[in-house]
Amino acid sequence: MRSGLGEVSRTRATAELALIGQIRARAAQAAPGVRLGIGDDCALLHLRPGEELAVTTDLSIDGRHFRLDWHPPEAVGHRVLARGLSDLAAMGARPVAAFLSLGLPRELTQVPHRSKAQAKTRSETWPKTWPKSWLDRFLDGLLALAKTYKTPLAGGDLAESPVAVADAVLIGAVTRGRALLRSGARPGDLLYVTGSLGGAAAGIESLAKLTGAGKTGRSRHASLQPPRIPPKWEALMAPHLYPQPRVVQGLWLARRGWATAAIDLSDGLSTDLRHLCEESEVSAEVDAVQLPIHPGASLEQALHGGEDYELLFTASPSARVPRTIAGVPVTRIGRTARRNPRTPGMTLQTAHGAQPLEARGWEHFA
Amino acid sequence: MRSGLGEVSRTRATAELALIGQIRARAAQAAPGVRLGIGDDCALLHLRPGEELAVTTDLSIDGRHFRLDWHPPEAVGHRVLARGLSDLAAMGARPVAAFLSLGLPRELTQVPHRSKAQAKTRSETWPKTWPKSWLDRFLDGLLALAKTYKTPLAGGDLAESPVAVADAVLIGAVTRGRALLRSGARPGDLLYVTGSLGGAAAGIESLAKLTGAGKTGRSRHASLQPPRIPPKWEALMAPHLYPQPRVVQGLWLARRGWATAAIDLSDGLSTDLRHLCEESEVSAEVDAVQLPIHPGASLEQALHGGEDYELLFTASPSARVPRTIAGVPVTRIGRTARRNPRTPGMTLQTAHGAQPLEARGWEHFA
Repeated sequence: MRSGLGEVSRTRATAELALIGQIRARAAQAAPGVRLGIGDDCALLHLRPGEELAVTTDLSIDGRHFRLDWHPPEAVGHRVLARGLSDLAAMGARPVAAFLSLGLPRELTQVPHRSKAQAKTRSETWPKTWPKSWLDRFLDGLLALAKTYKTPLAGGDLAESPVAVADAVLIGAVTRGRALLRSGARPGDLLYVTGSLGGAAAGIESLAKLTGAGKTGRSRHASLQPPRIPPKWEALMAPHLYPQPRVVQGLWLARRGWATAAIDLSDGLSTDLRHLCEESEVSAEVDAVQLPIHPGASLEQALHGGEDYELLFTASPSARVPRTIAGVPVTRIGRTARRNPRTPGMTLQTAHGAQPLEARGWEHFA
Repeated sequence: MRSGLGEVSRTRATAELALIGQIRARAAQAAPGVRLGIGDDCALLHLRPGEELAVTTDLSIDGRHFRLDWHPPEAVGHRVLARGLSDLAAMGARPVAAFLSLGLPRELTQVPHRSKAQAKTRSETWPKTWPKSWLDRFLDGLLALAKTYKTPLAGGDLAESPVAVADAVLIGAVTRGRALLRSGARPGDLLYVTGSLGGAAAGIESLAKLTGAGKTGRSRHASLQPPRIPPKWEALMAPHLYPQPRVVQGLWLARRGWATAAIDLSDGLSTDLRHLCEESEVSAEVDAVQLPIHPGASLEQALHGGEDYELLFTASPSARVPRTIAGVPVTRIGRTARRNPRTPGMTLQTAHGAQPLEARGWEHFA
């Protein structure tokens, strides 16, 4: 809203431009697909001949997808981008560019004041490059992941907001007709996952313990200094704080052409498998003993935990699926079958026999 | 955030899917550029040979860009999409698809309860198709505008949020090398605008009067029934509530190839002209008497009001610019000149002589 809404000062007209200028300077990165980046009404992107576009948007909101008082800003930035990159991976698309719409409380764009107590413990609780704003550290995390996957930040939007929100838009490219869809699985295909499952759920459980979840009554805005994570906990929390999208594995699968369907595990194996079954009109059977459960995670977390950002894919039994793709393990965890209205759509095979597998992963508005 | 954050029920796993299903059903629209819409990890889009992509994102937040207690939900939906379409227009790009990331308080997705008083006045204050949720009416407005410009809603994201936020992502296509940039104006070019200026600012001033801005202490969530707008006020408020993006005019300009630079007037003529001058490295002179001020608006509103979503463009004096493009008036309002460090970058010529023109349009974080 412009005139009339709120007390918008019209005299200090440079603040937003200065912030955008900062982001523009940090995002500047030569990229073959970007002809025009931040600074015009739109960004201009190129595809190669014979490619089609893959587009995904993922909205992350403080209190729902992250917490300012739990998550280091770098982890928030990483996670915001990882969600979109993982969607591209699930289609077998190569990243072309990212866009970021940010709504932030004003104090997150400013370098925080340092109390005497904070000044004392600075070496322990702040990175060496302190002082930085929350936004700077958020961009550190986001741009580091973007660099890993050669994904330039080509544009976005910035606004003041009472709640921190970040919408990441990923633009990818895939050879026409070669995208991995959710809808291609046939009865009798085998089910595979990359990496391990449940690590993110186990990680957030540890993070909740570390931060004394829900015990503090302190205001959100007063607690912009997230908890210091002790080195021995870092490995345990890494799958939650810094999940690795399987971009290279998705590209490999699309190039080989024998994955019949694919989806990324963002909402939890049970829920994402249900999506795949519904779109492909098949049922599925998962072998509990085959599941590559992350060290320290439970079977429950592996089945329903979500946010592992591994790929779940199907392939014909005749396909020669390797044990690893680009260094990441691939595990067969079950199979698909014809849909039968008299039996459950998803079954879990355990040592004690078969039981229905319910979709109990993440849902919004649930 | 999945497990561990908030009290997410894992049993009612169908609510989000049901909502997405509703949007998917409403958005379904055959479109040549969309090979795969809502329902997979990404949407898949086609461009025509020789085209490049134009991408823009615009974040709208309750209390900043709209107000739940001021704006009819249909107008919010219209305005959210109009911002992005206007960015495409400013590049001369044809719309290919839109994406929408929505964060909403739960009650906005539900059909509101009807009090006895509301039931009585139903015929006056609710559209005939009542009962509808806020989200339904928001989509009515957004999809009506999308239909006008043949822009399918091809995907997005949906999450519960304490504050209503909507990020609109527009994907357009433009013949390679023909996009209208901010940076192409040359000293001596003439300045033009489409339509009229200040109508949106005058409209929101009326809306503020109608709603008794700031006088009510009622809670935002209790006031989801926006004010009824009396028919005689409708025309006055239309430029603010239902601005028309100049998509057809932008396409026309790009096809002709003689506009040297263009920008859309979202932040106000003074601020957007400054953007154009900075990117083109020119200065500018505006003739106050030439400005096509909207009936009922002031010179101040025309210069700094913002949200008119008209196009500002430059062309060589030798270009034969018509008086109208596709039925919309085109007015010459000034000229560009060489930059001179000793004079102001923008000048306003009035009956009383020349004065510096300051950028006093909209800025976030100002």
